[in-house]
Amino acid sequence: MSTAPSIQRLLDEFERLPGIGPKSAQRIVYWLLNSDRASAERLSAAVLDVKDSVHFCPQCGNYAEGDLCEICASSKRDASMICVVSEPRDIPPIERTGAFGGLYHVLGGALSPLEGVGPDDLRIGDLMKRLADSGVEEVLLATNPNVEGETTASYLARLIRPLGLKVTRLASGLPVGGDLEFADEVTLGRAIESRRTL
Amino acid sequence: MSTAPSIQRLLDEFERLPGIGPKSAQRIVYWLLNSDRASAERLSAAVLDVKDSVHFCPQCGNYAEGDLCEICASSKRDASMICVVSEPRDIPPIERTGAFGGLYHVLGGALSPLEGVGPDDLRIGDLMKRLADSGVEEVLLATNPNVEGETTASYLARLIRPLGLKVTRLASGLPVGGDLEFADEVTLGRAIESRRTL
Repeated sequence: MSTAPSIQRLLDEFERLPGIGPKSAQRIVYWLLNSDRASAERLSAAVLDVKDSVHFCPQCGNYAEGDLCEICASSKRDASMICVVSEPRDIPPIERTGAFGGLYHVLGGALSPLEGVGPDDLRIGDLMKRLADSGVEEVLLATNPNVEGETTASYLARLIRPLGLKVTRLASGLPVGGDLEFADEVTLGRAIESRRTL
Repeated sequence: MSTAPSIQRLLDEFERLPGIGPKSAQRIVYWLLNSDRASAERLSAAVLDVKDSVHFCPQCGNYAEGDLCEICASSKRDASMICVVSEPRDIPPIERTGAFGGLYHVLGGALSPLEGVGPDDLRIGDLMKRLADSGVEEVLLATNPNVEGETTASYLARLIRPLGLKVTRLASGLPVGGDLEFADEVTLGRAIESRRTL
C-alpha cells in the first residue's frame, strides 16, 4: 500500500459506483485533489442533498422533491395521457424526445415470475385508481422491450382495456440511423411485422 | 426541466468530473438514489476527507497524509534510487509494476516553453538538494515519453550527470503484448534503435 489512506478510501468509494473502473476512479480522484476545495464541497453536499431531499412522488412514483414530482406538479402536462414505465430512470430518456407531453406512472419494476415479482409487488393498484378517478383517455405502456417488460405490458393491457381506454405500446423496430445489416433478427423480424403502409 | 433540482445539481456535479458524460452521470445518480443513505454518506465524506487530509509530501512532492508520504516514510524503500516523475498521478502506475523499489521525486509538471513552464516552475532545486545531501546512486527519469517529458529528461540529465550519479531513462519501444502491425512509426523506430542483443 503506497497510497495515502484517504486517497485509497475515495478510490474505493468511486469504484463502487456503476460504470467506474479503477482507472476512471483514479482519474477522478486526482482531478479532485487538483481542484479547489469548493468543487469537492459542492460534490460532497450534492450527494447528501439528493438523499435528503428526494422522495417518491405520491401520485406517479417518480423521484420528487416537492409534494408532487416536477411533472405531476406542472400545469402544462396533458393529464389525459399516462405513460407507464418500470423505473424513474426510464422517464428522462422519454422526456428528452419531446414526443410525450402527458403524465407518468412508475410501476417500480416489471413482472418476473423467475425473480418472484408479481402484480402485487408493482404499483398497479395505484395505476388502476388513477385511471378510474381522472379524465385519462390513453395509457402508453412504455415498459422495456424485453421479456419482463412485454409480459408486464400484456398484463396491463388486459387489465386496462375493459375500462374503455385507448391502450398503446412503444413501437419496436429498427433504430433510426441504424444499419439493416447489423440489426439482430428479433428486431428486424419485429420491424417487418410492424411494417407501415406508405 | 422535468427533473428534481437536487437530482439535476448532482447530475451537474458528476458531469464535471473527468471521463463522466451525461449517461454515466445519470447511471450513477440513479444508483445513489436507489442505494442506502450510508453509501451516500461514505462517498460524501470521502470526497471532503481527501481535501482535508491530503497535502504534498515535503520531501518528494507526492500526495501525503502523514508528515511524509507513505513511500518516503517507508523503511523498506531503497533510498539509493530516485525516480523522477512529472505528477503524483504517475506514481501509482509505476508502483503497480513492482519493478521499482526506490523513492520518488515529483516535479509538478514538465518543461514547456510553449506553455511558459521553465525550470524555476518545477521542483528541480529541491531535487538537486536531495541529490547533494543523500546517498543517492541512480536517478531514473520517468517523465512522459512526449516532447515536454523528453525535454525535461534531457535537461535534468545534463544537470545531474556532473554529480557523478547514474542517470537512467524509461525505455521506449513496443508495448508488451502489442502488435507490430499496429505500432506507430515513431514507437517502432525507437524500438529498432534501442534493439537488444539476445
